[in-house]
Amino acid sequence: MSEQTIGGTGEFDLIARITEVLPRTAEVLIGPGDDTALVATHSGSVLATIDVLVEGVHFRRDWSSATDVGRKAAAASLADIAAMGGVATALLVGFAAPGDLPVTWALECTAGLTAEAARVGACVVGGDVAASSVITLAVTALGDLQGRSPVLRSGAQAGHVLAVAGRLGWSAAGLAVLSGGFRSPAVLIDAHRVPDPPYSAGPMAAHAGATAMIDVSDGLIADARHLAEASGVDVVIDTDTWNIPGSMAAAASALGVDPREWMLTGGEDHALLATFPAGVVVPVGFRIIGSVMASDEPGVIVDGVRRRGLGGHVHFTVER
Amino acid sequence: MSEQTIGGTGEFDLIARITEVLPRTAEVLIGPGDDTALVATHSGSVLATIDVLVEGVHFRRDWSSATDVGRKAAAASLADIAAMGGVATALLVGFAAPGDLPVTWALECTAGLTAEAARVGACVVGGDVAASSVITLAVTALGDLQGRSPVLRSGAQAGHVLAVAGRLGWSAAGLAVLSGGFRSPAVLIDAHRVPDPPYSAGPMAAHAGATAMIDVSDGLIADARHLAEASGVDVVIDTDTWNIPGSMAAAASALGVDPREWMLTGGEDHALLATFPAGVVVPVGFRIIGSVMASDEPGVIVDGVRRRGLGGHVHFTVER
Repeated sequence: MSEQTIGGTGEFDLIARITEVLPRTAEVLIGPGDDTALVATHSGSVLATIDVLVEGVHFRRDWSSATDVGRKAAAASLADIAAMGGVATALLVGFAAPGDLPVTWALECTAGLTAEAARVGACVVGGDVAASSVITLAVTALGDLQGRSPVLRSGAQAGHVLAVAGRLGWSAAGLAVLSGGFRSPAVLIDAHRVPDPPYSAGPMAAHAGATAMIDVSDGLIADARHLAEASGVDVVIDTDTWNIPGSMAAAASALGVDPREWMLTGGEDHALLATFPAGVVVPVGFRIIGSVMASDEPGVIVDGVRRRGLGGHVHFTVER
Repeated sequence: MSEQTIGGTGEFDLIARITEVLPRTAEVLIGPGDDTALVATHSGSVLATIDVLVEGVHFRRDWSSATDVGRKAAAASLADIAAMGGVATALLVGFAAPGDLPVTWALECTAGLTAEAARVGACVVGGDVAASSVITLAVTALGDLQGRSPVLRSGAQAGHVLAVAGRLGWSAAGLAVLSGGFRSPAVLIDAHRVPDPPYSAGPMAAHAGATAMIDVSDGLIADARHLAEASGVDVVIDTDTWNIPGSMAAAASALGVDPREWMLTGGEDHALLATFPAGVVVPVGFRIIGSVMASDEPGVIVDGVRRRGLGGHVHFTVER
């Protein structure tokens, strides 16, 4: 018997099969199945963000399982909520795919979305499916500040310390390994397939008095530049004291590259980059990697050298 | 000089050019430019929905302008908010497109999204852009109930009256006209390009005591069936007294079809279908088209005949 496809089962049956297995948290006043969802917002406001993943651009089906893709898509949006100091409450998922896609792929992708959301206590509350020649996931995350003020990109000031929580360069290293035709180190390939954002570090940073914060999705230099420009400062990064993970050092050696470049320019790990007032004890999970300086020409300085390139993944264009 | 493409201008410049022209309402506490938006939610909860539009499936660039596509994409989500009895506050837009797309197309599409959102007092608060071979828009709408209870699909009971606000079959008729190679009636073609959902009728229906409501996006029979199944009733539709708009009658005559089938099965006009207790004066804009009956086998009865097919647009499958 041939595998059942989403074209064979049809839109409404697919939606029914997806929604019947979705868990539901206390914040969900109305879940999937009506015109919209209704989600409680205890703080009187709601954080909201959307991220798009496209097959062939953000993932390959021969490199990532459907569950991996679902988890990766959810993580991109959930990490944005954490980067404001918030806690995610709900996901909405727009899903477009060819009719010959196996139903199991769609269901496993949903399981991945659900599993990643469950890591922060959120769940999938709504969605839409459509036919397309390219698998595309658009994931909206909603979140709550729980009474805290949002941590914007624009609050960094001269004298603040720069700190990061989570992984840098792991996904890029994993992609380089896969692109080189290698099957190991598995820890890097796994990191490319499914990021491990430090979700809880976001609210902790907000509570500890972080002055600015951003999700490192495009790469450390690219996202540090966003923070620098929004704050009107120079962000100064020192790599001297960085520990290069052993697996990354081994992969870099095998591929003949400098692992620091993965850590400076690799995106999709969804580390959290934050600034704190000097003298603050940074929360558990954060490590200090630099500082903030006044500047007439806001930008990023790495090991004393001003980096003018974007140094990260940019859609549509090659690196400038 | 050749036209500037989004691949030529690049992701960050495109985002900057899109966001610099976005208006902002009082509900928007934090707009585009940070990790997430922050939107006020006065009622302690937020309505949220997502809809996906794909080129070649939901629109054709030779039939619809970029502004049309933006307005249509926004309307699909905004109408869902209205169908709960809510008022939309914000849109988030996931946009995927090929690098050779003209920048003007992306900007005009954004203008369309913004213009449609402005019709209900909402605005675009965030988004994401990605490279893809297919133009894809995923639009999330957020909304507020303003203290009202949500109007679900599940509240219809035997004896209630069935009423509809907004257009039925206009978009389907316009599509049939375009597909037949005709250029008129313009009013139908325009209706296919840009729907005109009766947004304000949603909150009015909720205020008037509507017992159930749904956005007619797939077609009257298909969406009446959703309401019937959610409520466990039969939805009875009588077409005897329907007025067939003159342009629709003319187009149907030219194409040799029954215009009632467009009105019964055509989607994308985003009419609002609602039930009210017997004796209620239905709000301005609504017209009574039938009633609700008890049923052991919930479904839709049109002019005395039980309609078993979905009778509307269903992704992936041909009509059953």
